[in-house]
Amino acid sequence: MKKYLQALLVASVLLTLTACGRLKDSDLSSNSTTSLKKSKTYQTTDTGSTGYNVLLKNGKYVTSDIDGITATNKDNSVDEREFQRGLVAISKNVYPTGTNVFQEGQYLDSTTVNNWLGRRSKNNPAGLNPAVNGSKAASSRNPIYLEELQEQNYLTGSGSSYHLSGLSIGLALNSSDYYQKTTDGPYFSTSISRANQRSYGERTAETVIARLRRRKALKNVPITIGLFSKTDQDSLVGGSYFAYGTASANSSKITKWKPVSEKWQVLPTVGSAKAYSSSDESKFTNFKGAIENYFPNVSGVIGYLRYQDKKLVQENIAITTQFYGYEQVQSFTRLVESCAKKYLSNDTAVEIKIGSVNDVQALVFKESADSAYQVHIYGGE
Amino acid sequence: MKKYLQALLVASVLLTLTACGRLKDSDLSSNSTTSLKKSKTYQTTDTGSTGYNVLLKNGKYVTSDIDGITATNKDNSVDEREFQRGLVAISKNVYPTGTNVFQEGQYLDSTTVNNWLGRRSKNNPAGLNPAVNGSKAASSRNPIYLEELQEQNYLTGSGSSYHLSGLSIGLALNSSDYYQKTTDGPYFSTSISRANQRSYGERTAETVIARLRRRKALKNVPITIGLFSKTDQDSLVGGSYFAYGTASANSSKITKWKPVSEKWQVLPTVGSAKAYSSSDESKFTNFKGAIENYFPNVSGVIGYLRYQDKKLVQENIAITTQFYGYEQVQSFTRLVESCAKKYLSNDTAVEIKIGSVNDVQALVFKESADSAYQVHIYGGE
Repeated sequence: MKKYLQALLVASVLLTLTACGRLKDSDLSSNSTTSLKKSKTYQTTDTGSTGYNVLLKNGKYVTSDIDGITATNKDNSVDEREFQRGLVAISKNVYPTGTNVFQEGQYLDSTTVNNWLGRRSKNNPAGLNPAVNGSKAASSRNPIYLEELQEQNYLTGSGSSYHLSGLSIGLALNSSDYYQKTTDGPYFSTSISRANQRSYGERTAETVIARLRRRKALKNVPITIGLFSKTDQDSLVGGSYFAYGTASANSSKITKWKPVSEKWQVLPTVGSAKAYSSSDESKFTNFKGAIENYFPNVSGVIGYLRYQDKKLVQENIAITTQFYGYEQVQSFTRLVESCAKKYLSNDTAVEIKIGSVNDVQALVFKESADSAYQVHIYGGE
Repeated sequence: MKKYLQALLVASVLLTLTACGRLKDSDLSSNSTTSLKKSKTYQTTDTGSTGYNVLLKNGKYVTSDIDGITATNKDNSVDEREFQRGLVAISKNVYPTGTNVFQEGQYLDSTTVNNWLGRRSKNNPAGLNPAVNGSKAASSRNPIYLEELQEQNYLTGSGSSYHLSGLSIGLALNSSDYYQKTTDGPYFSTSISRANQRSYGERTAETVIARLRRRKALKNVPITIGLFSKTDQDSLVGGSYFAYGTASANSSKITKWKPVSEKWQVLPTVGSAKAYSSSDESKFTNFKGAIENYFPNVSGVIGYLRYQDKKLVQENIAITTQFYGYEQVQSFTRLVESCAKKYLSNDTAVEIKIGSVNDVQALVFKESADSAYQVHIYGGE
């Protein structure tokens, strides 16, 4: 009875899957109903023209066992999205999107990663963070370097047969490690320089690869490691990757580390801080000034700009309003659109979110450098 | 000195205004710098192909003095948007969008409206809600009928000369009036039937018009009144207008009340309640079933459907997720798009909001029956 129910369940999932256009479910067309009892049935989903297709297993998105595990509980959650997005972006250089599909990492489990993220000690010889050295002074203690570890799998294949073509591992390294000198005492922090992040990160990368090579399934595939610098607790924008390298199949060495040039900039700048690009800053300032003049109750305009190889690639702007009226939102949104066209850089992706603190009221966006502006007012017209 | 600063301020606002493309600022091109000292300078903003342009004054959006004033503090805020949107929709029947521009109401002030929304009494002879009759029983007491009053102005003209072509007034009538029998006691409620909303609303409309006619500026323009039924406190969707009528210039009578057929439907229905359209319900159920099968952590799919003259015109769907991964959001959003195309009605506007409770992660939408689906992932790709 239980098996019958299981078969029914799988059948209904498969029926559902065939119903949505973007699923590529080659199994279904070529196999008879006996295939419904196979333990693995793969489907892939399309994630847009520039992204990876995602591999589903028995009709389900497969999550990784190590999602969200951190060494301390003092990390900044704004890092999370960039930690993941950045590793996908790096992987595109190594595992082409046309032939590879994405799956969240399936080889590392939470027990293993919890041990790896701990300090090395008699009880935890696998710990990748250094043993305590007795010092509680910010500059002489051993900080927690490795805050988080992420695994992504890239596979090639078709139908019911997919095999691993490579692994990507992200190592999230603290730039500030927060600690207490006494239980329940105040927090102090040890700053970790980029040079120290780099030397610790490169060393740890090879340790991780060597450990992965001990597993039969991972002996023979390229392994790419990205080094990510986490932000401090007060940052409004996520950290970024600063280097990556790949160990070829069978090797545990990364012979060449390549730089990743990514930078987030928040506008307006605080105090006398200088913006990364004064030209983008003045465009933003003009845009901000224009929309603030039109409407009462615009309480904040903040820009989050992402640079890649020194070029502005994404400009996200959050406009906080205390608007009351339906027509006020309508007309303000159209004005924002026209001011964006007039003032902001034309050859970058733009997202402008209009709303109160917890509620998006409208959205003006430009998906890529080449596309046109789109407008959406929440709730319909 | 003060006058100089003022002129400078006005000049800078005008400079700003000319900078954004969609502003039509005919004053600026035809007048010399002396026009900067005129007390009224008008501009209009474009609010999309089917909406009204909005009239700005001295470069600013003008708000109404009576925004948000209510008779009691027990009303449901989900009504607010519909109360405003619906009156704009009604006004389109009377004041054509091509020749008229919109401005929030400028004739009624907060003192007047606070008095009107009160109960009639010796101290408040202008009160439009009935005097207390001594009874505290739900069925025999006099309830508060009129909860809120809204004014919209429609104008025609160009350059520096605009004149009022008509007024619209919305009367928001309670369907449940909440009251206490003793201070700090529990709340009870008096239900108000549609028939009673209608007879009270029609009577009050003519009282309001007669009062407006006493003002010189309002003697000679059409005045349109919409009757809006508010929802009870637990409703997830806003109320709707059920009737409107227009008193011609110089008249205080509305000779013909026209019905407004609008209905909101929340899906899935609760308990054994029947949906307004079983066909739209089954489309929604198929869509919901399909996306829930693909991904873990989809914790809710709720549809808000708006019908106009029995036709589905807007389908808003909120999908609540507890997603963690960047790729998970990407691939889920694409799947939602394909399932929307496959399952949902094709000839209606659709908005699908994907996110956690307080944070929108992605948006899939179709602006009108004729347009194509658009997708936006918050934060950029």
